[in-house]
Amino acid sequence: MRTIHVIGIGAGDPDHLTLQAIKAIKATEVFFLLDKGEEKSDLTGLRKAMLDEHIPDGSYRVVEARDPARDRKTDNYAPAVDDWRSRRADIYERLIGEELDDGQTGAFLVWGDPALYDSTLGILEEILERGRVEFSYDVIPGISSVSALVARHRTGLNRVARPVQITTGRRLAQGFPEGVDDVVVMLDAHQSFTHYTDQDIEIHWGAYIGTPDEILVSGPLAEAAPRIAELRAEARARKGWIMDTYLLRRNPGG
Amino acid sequence: MRTIHVIGIGAGDPDHLTLQAIKAIKATEVFFLLDKGEEKSDLTGLRKAMLDEHIPDGSYRVVEARDPARDRKTDNYAPAVDDWRSRRADIYERLIGEELDDGQTGAFLVWGDPALYDSTLGILEEILERGRVEFSYDVIPGISSVSALVARHRTGLNRVARPVQITTGRRLAQGFPEGVDDVVVMLDAHQSFTHYTDQDIEIHWGAYIGTPDEILVSGPLAEAAPRIAELRAEARARKGWIMDTYLLRRNPGG
Ligand SMILES: C[S@@+](CC[C@H](N)C(=O)[O-])C[C@H]1O[C@@H](n2cnc3c(N)ncnc32)[C@H](O)[C@@H]1O
Ligand SMILES: C[S@@+](CC[C@H](N)C(=O)[O-])C[C@H]1O[C@@H](n2cnc3c(N)ncnc32)[C@H](O)[C@@H]1O
Repeated sequence: MRTIHVIGIGAGDPDHLTLQAIKAIKATEVFFLLDKGEEKSDLTGLRKAMLDEHIPDGSYRVVEARDPARDRKTDNYAPAVDDWRSRRADIYERLIGEELDDGQTGAFLVWGDPALYDSTLGILEEILERGRVEFSYDVIPGISSVSALVARHRTGLNRVARPVQITTGRRLAQGFPEGVDDVVVMLDAHQSFTHYTDQDIEIHWGAYIGTPDEILVSGPLAEAAPRIAELRAEARARKGWIMDTYLLRRNPGG
Repeated sequence: MRTIHVIGIGAGDPDHLTLQAIKAIKATEVFFLLDKGEEKSDLTGLRKAMLDEHIPDGSYRVVEARDPARDRKTDNYAPAVDDWRSRRADIYERLIGEELDDGQTGAFLVWGDPALYDSTLGILEEILERGRVEFSYDVIPGISSVSALVARHRTGLNRVARPVQITTGRRLAQGFPEGVDDVVVMLDAHQSFTHYTDQDIEIHWGAYIGTPDEILVSGPLAEAAPRIAELRAEARARKGWIMDTYLLRRNPGG
């Protein structure tokens, strides 16, 4: 039987690693590193640096593969993601089948927390359903970009006795979520917060959180929005890619 | 100037500690441990064991105090919590003022992630506003019980491209949140999930997650609910207290 660890590595700061993650890393023989091509290879570099720091050279093997590109042109997000996931499942299935011997332990190093907007768990389930390769797996939680964001802003996710919603930029563009005034937004390529500058909302925004490039902005949305837009465009141009997340905190009276 | 670290220590497993948390622990001279009295002193024990494991005896000081009791009888939850917070602020203010010298570093070891349903950050802000003691503080994110729950169940918080809400048992009892089908429930003393057994919902439930007493149950809510109620009552009677969290995943077609 093969074993696979799905290891949350935190959202940018190598010190986000938990002791549990480090133990799982030490117990792993083969690491599967999937590179999204493009600019994201910075993130592959960070993963390799983590391995370098925590386990001796020669005690493990790294198998690299190129993640298939997702069709970003379609408007139909969910089916495009499903198709993308199947193509990734093909690759992961082949890697596990060919690169991991019976009795060996492999791992995927997942950005942030594997529970948030990440397809690794879904892919592994899809492979198991196909039934062509067998393995058992476990999941090691990690510090998500959401936790990292609010820690850096020294604020909570929820207000006392109230709910918080985590959603995507695409959803936020369709309307402010019902029934909540505290909303965390991820995967927002279009700065959907700009739709709500007429409301009494505070924003806590962060890009490249936990990394040396970290940028943080907080304040009333109407004032902060243009500054964030500017900083975001500038950083994106400079680095070639951006990861940002934000909390919108609406004043219920406003 | 005094410095304070608000350190997320994870939700029960000592290996949830991050490297960042361990560094902050090592840099701390005085730890403030607030005991909620009652049964919760198990949780104080876990914090002391963490200190024992990561820093040498004699290199730090522990200041213990009794957290004031919250009035659980009132129906008016938010004001009761505000009042409780003020009384806690009095205690924390006194501890910081009396037990931490100028130039020293203190820390609060916060259960899970300080960002979720925890009052430490609000209390520190309240003390700073009062202006009688001065300090700077930072926040170290931790593995929340929410992350730990879904990792143990090997599932994600959100489904592809969809939102997730984190809320309280009290809120869930008032109605299933609008606009979301994936809901994590914390602070539920009344098993509010039992209100929804007529719907097509899957539950992932966990108690004492990450500890040797961990109990996990997954399945269709209608089938799982009575089993959870039974296990919960039994565990609560045996240990004298319970901490549980769950994810409700509703089938949108159902
Ligand atoms: C595919 S999701 C993966 C999320 C990841 N599993 C987590 O727990 O943070 C990618 C999104 O996460 C957010 N993100 C991840 N890392 C970030 C960072 N260091 N700073 C800001 N946002 C980040 C951004 O919203 C980005 O669009
Ligand atoms: C006051 S809140 C604190 C939450 C904490 N800051 C966190 O991030 O998990 C306490 C609630 O957290 C949940 N909880 C905390 N630790 C837990 C554990 N080990 N297992 C299950 N639920 C837990 C329960 O819902 C409990 O009612």
